Amino acid sequence: MSDRIANALLRGKVMSADEAAQFIDHGDKVGMSGFTGAAYPKALPTAIANRAKEAQAKGETYKIDVYTGASTAPDCDGVMAEAGAINYRMPYQSDPVMRNAINSGEMKYQDIHLSHSGQYVEHGFFGQLDVAVVEATRITEEGHLIPSSGVGNNVDYLDAAKKIIIEVNEWQSVDLEGMADVYRIGHLPNRTPIPIINSGDRIGKTYIDIDISKVVAVVETNAPDRNAPFKPVDETSQKIAGYFLDFLEGEVKGGRLAYDNYIMQSGVGNVPNAVMAGLLDSKFEKIEAYTEVIQDGMVDLIDAGKMTVASATSFSLSPEYAEKMNAEAKRYRESIILRPLQVSNHPEVIRRVGLISSNGMIEADIYGNINSTHVAGQRIMNGIGGSGDFTRNARISTFISPSDAKDGAISSIVPFASHIDHTEHDAMVVITEYGVADLRGLAPRDRVAKMISVAHPSYRPLLEEYVERANKSKFQQTPHDLATAFSFHQRLLETGSMQK
Amino acid sequence: MSDRIANALLRGKVMSADEAAQFIDHGDKVGMSGFTGAAYPKALPTAIANRAKEAQAKGETYKIDVYTGASTAPDCDGVMAEAGAINYRMPYQSDPVMRNAINSGEMKYQDIHLSHSGQYVEHGFFGQLDVAVVEATRITEEGHLIPSSGVGNNVDYLDAAKKIIIEVNEWQSVDLEGMADVYRIGHLPNRTPIPIINSGDRIGKTYIDIDISKVVAVVETNAPDRNAPFKPVDETSQKIAGYFLDFLEGEVKGGRLAYDNYIMQSGVGNVPNAVMAGLLDSKFEKIEAYTEVIQDGMVDLIDAGKMTVASATSFSLSPEYAEKMNAEAKRYRESIILRPLQVSNHPEVIRRVGLISSNGMIEADIYGNINSTHVAGQRIMNGIGGSGDFTRNARISTFISPSDAKDGAISSIVPFASHIDHTEHDAMVVITEYGVADLRGLAPRDRVAKMISVAHPSYRPLLEEYVERANKSKFQQTPHDLATAFSFHQRLLETGSMQK
Repeated sequence: MSDRIANALLRGKVMSADEAAQFIDHGDKVGMSGFTGAAYPKALPTAIANRAKEAQAKGETYKIDVYTGASTAPDCDGVMAEAGAINYRMPYQSDPVMRNAINSGEMKYQDIHLSHSGQYVEHGFFGQLDVAVVEATRITEEGHLIPSSGVGNNVDYLDAAKKIIIEVNEWQSVDLEGMADVYRIGHLPNRTPIPIINSGDRIGKTYIDIDISKVVAVVETNAPDRNAPFKPVDETSQKIAGYFLDFLEGEVKGGRLAYDNYIMQSGVGNVPNAVMAGLLDSKFEKIEAYTEVIQDGMVDLIDAGKMTVASATSFSLSPEYAEKMNAEAKRYRESIILRPLQVSNHPEVIRRVGLISSNGMIEADIYGNINSTHVAGQRIMNGIGGSGDFTRNARISTFISPSDAKDGAISSIVPFASHIDHTEHDAMVVITEYGVADLRGLAPRDRVAKMISVAHPSYRPLLEEYVERANKSKFQQTPHDLATAFSFHQRLLETGSMQK
Repeated sequence: MSDRIANALLRGKVMSADEAAQFIDHGDKVGMSGFTGAAYPKALPTAIANRAKEAQAKGETYKIDVYTGASTAPDCDGVMAEAGAINYRMPYQSDPVMRNAINSGEMKYQDIHLSHSGQYVEHGFFGQLDVAVVEATRITEEGHLIPSSGVGNNVDYLDAAKKIIIEVNEWQSVDLEGMADVYRIGHLPNRTPIPIINSGDRIGKTYIDIDISKVVAVVETNAPDRNAPFKPVDETSQKIAGYFLDFLEGEVKGGRLAYDNYIMQSGVGNVPNAVMAGLLDSKFEKIEAYTEVIQDGMVDLIDAGKMTVASATSFSLSPEYAEKMNAEAKRYRESIILRPLQVSNHPEVIRRVGLISSNGMIEADIYGNINSTHVAGQRIMNGIGGSGDFTRNARISTFISPSDAKDGAISSIVPFASHIDHTEHDAMVVITEYGVADLRGLAPRDRVAKMISVAHPSYRPLLEEYVERANKSKFQQTPHDLATAFSFHQRLLETGSMQK
C-alpha cells in the first residue's frame, strides 16, 4: 500500500474502484473533484460506468447525478456518458461524448455559473448529496486531504456528502503540497469578508480537513490528468492577441492602467495562450493572474519573471508542461496558488482586485450580447463556466474570438445572439482579428458600427442589410427586425452556412 | 439665507438656479443626485432645460450628458428631456417624456447595472466628469453634506467632478441626519473588504465630506420629492403575493429558511407592496431588508415590529408615507440606513448577507431567461436598475409578475425572451398569479412545463404549440424553432396582441 495514505483508519478503507463503486447507488447525487481535465477521479468513473452497463445487461437502470468543479476527461465524463450512467450533470462539461449525449437528449445538463455551483449544494437546492468522490495527492496522518492538481468544489462536496470516497493518485507530485490555499466560505448566515486583498494572499490551509468517519473507501490510482497539447499559435490567434495588447496599451495611454500590476483573468484556449505569448515581449511587468485555470502561457510568464503570482483553482496544461509542473512543483508553488472554486471565482474578490477579464465566445450580436454556449441557440458546446463570474465583476470585461468559424460558414458577429449568456449590460470590449470594439459608455445604437467593424468582411454586408431593416423600427433604443433577427442562424441550420 | 448652510465659504456661493446653471456648459458630463424620485436636484434641471431652449431659440445647441443614481422625476428627467437638453443618459430612468425621447431616437440612453455606474465614472470610462449637482438636507459648518432622502452615486460624482453645485432643500427633514451611512469603496488598487456582516451594520459617516474648493454654487430649494401614490392592491397582486409567501413557507418546510431573519430585497411597485402587506400577517419575524429602495410596505413592517432593519440607498414612498417619514425621521433612522449605491448594490455584500431577491419583469421565456427592459425587444421601458446586482448574487432569486398585460394582449411568458437582461443561469424562481415556477436544479427542458404552468391560460396552448415545434430540433439541450421564436412579439407588433 502507498505510503501516501498516512492515516491508520483510512488505510483500512483501501479497496478497488469496483468495490468502492458499490457505495454509489442508482439515483445517487455524486459530487466529484475535477476541473478542466485536472484532479478528476481516475478510477471510480469507469467503475461507475461498468455498474451502469451491468445494470443495463440485466434490464435494470443505474444512473446517477454528477456534479464536478468543471470539465473532466474522457476517462471520467466520457466513460460515464458513453455508458448512459448519468441522469443529470452540472455545472460545466466539455467532453465530446457527453456533449453528444446532452444534445441528443439522452442526459440532462444544467449549465451553472461556477461560483454558484458549490453554494447551491450548500443551500440544499439539489437535496442531500450522497457521495463525494475526490482525488488527493496524499492523506496525512490526521486524515487531511492534500489536494492534487485542482481544488474546485471539493470542499463543498466533502462537507455536504453523506459518504466520501478518496482516490489517492500516485502520479500527482507530492510537492504540490503547499500550493493549495483551502479557505472555507462560511455557511449562511455566518459569512464574513474573504480576507484576500491581493491576488497572491494566502488565507487558508494547505489541506482539506474532512470528517473521516464519512469515508467509505480509499482507492489507489496512478494516472495522469487529461493534459491536451495546445495547437501552435496560428495567424488569426496572433492577430487577436496583437489587438488585445493594443487595447491594453490604449488603457495605459488613457491613464486607466499601469505597466505594472495588470491583473489578468483568462479563459482557456489557443487565443489566450497567444495573448500570454504576446505579454512575454510586452512592457507589462509584475503581471498577476486572478483566474480559474493555470495554463502554459502563465507558466512561461512566471518563468520569464513577468508574472509574480497566479491564483486559480486548477490546471489546464499541455503534457509537456504538466510534466514540468510535477517535477518542479516545489518551485512553482511559490508563485501559484490553487483556491477553492468559490474563492477563485467569488464576485467579492474578483471585484476587489480589479482584474481585466478575457473570455472566448461563440457569437456576439450587434448590441454586444454574448453567446458563450449554444451554436444556433440550441446545440450546446461546453458551458458558461466562470465567464459570467469574471465578466460581471471585472474592472474591464473583454471577449476575444476569431471573427468566423468552420471555414467561414459561421460568423461570430450576428444580428441577435441566439443564446444570451452575457448581456449588453456586461460585455465591454469585443476583440477579433479585425480589431477592437470598445463598447464602454455607448448607447446600443452606437455600438453597432463598432461591432460590425470587427466582423469578418464577408459578413459585413449582411450585417449592414440587417441594420438597415432593423432601423426601420418604430423604437430606436435597440432596433430589431424580429422576422429576420435569427436569419443567420436559420441559414446555418438549413444550408450549413450563415452566408447567403 | 437658510441656516441650513452653516459653512461660511459655501454661504458665499449661494445663488439662483439660473445663475448656477451658467457653470454647466454644452457638452458637459453632469452627475446628479436622485434615485427613484427621491433626492434629485429640484431647481437645476429646469434651469438647464431653459438654457437648452434659449440656445435652440438662437439656433445653437446645448446638450449635456446626465448620470444619476437611478430614476428621478418629471421636474428633473422630464423637463430636461422635453427641452432636448440631454445627449446621453445613464444608468436608469423611468420618466414617460424621457422614455419617449429615447424610443424615438432623440437621445441616447445606456442601461447599466446600478452597482457598475459609479465605478465606471471612477474608472474613467466616460472621461472626466465636469459637474456634480447634488441635493443635500444641510451643509455643516465644516462644509460636509448631509444627504437628503437618498445617497445613490453622490459620493462618486462629488469625488470625480471638477465642479460641484449643491442644492439645499428645506423640504427635507433635518432629522434625516443620521440615517445615511456614507462609506467610500476604496479606489483601485486600494480596495479592501466592505465590513458589513449584517444588513444593519453601520460602517461609515453620517455625512459626505467634499472638496469645498470645487463648489461653484449653492442653490436653496424647498420642494417635495416625487412621491407617487401606490395603486390599491388588486386581486392579481394579492394572488402573486400569496404564491410568494407560499414559496417562502416551502423554503421553511424544506429547511432552507427560518421564520426569523428572512432577508428581503424587493423591486418597487404594487406587487412588492402586496408581498409586504402579506408579510405583515405571516409567521415571519425579525425580517431585514438589504435592498435599494425603502417603500411603504417596509415602513409598515417596521411599524408593526416585523422588520428590524431596512438598508437601502433611497426612498420611494407615497406622499402620505413621505410626510410621515419627514415628520418621524428621528424614529425611523433607528431602523433605516441609507447607503451609497455602490454599497447597497455591491455583489460582495449581497452575496454575504444571503438575501432572497424579488424583482418585476416584462417577460420570461420557457427556459427562464428574463426580459426586464424592452417590450418586443425594442421599446425600452425603464431599465435593468439593480435587478442584475441582486439577482446574480442573491441566495434565491425570484421574479414576480402578472402573467399578462394590456388586457391580455401581452403574455409575460413567451417562447424566447425578446431582450435578455437576466439569463437562464441567473433566474431561479418565477411567480405569477397562477403559481410558482421553481427552476432550481432543472435542466432547460425540465423548466418548460413549470414555466407554462404559470403562464396565463389563454396563452398556454400557443406556448405548447411552440414547444411542440421546438422539440423537433436536432439539438435537445435548449430546443428552439428559430423561425417562430419571436412569433408572439411579431404578432404584437403587427396586430397589437400576442394572441392569435
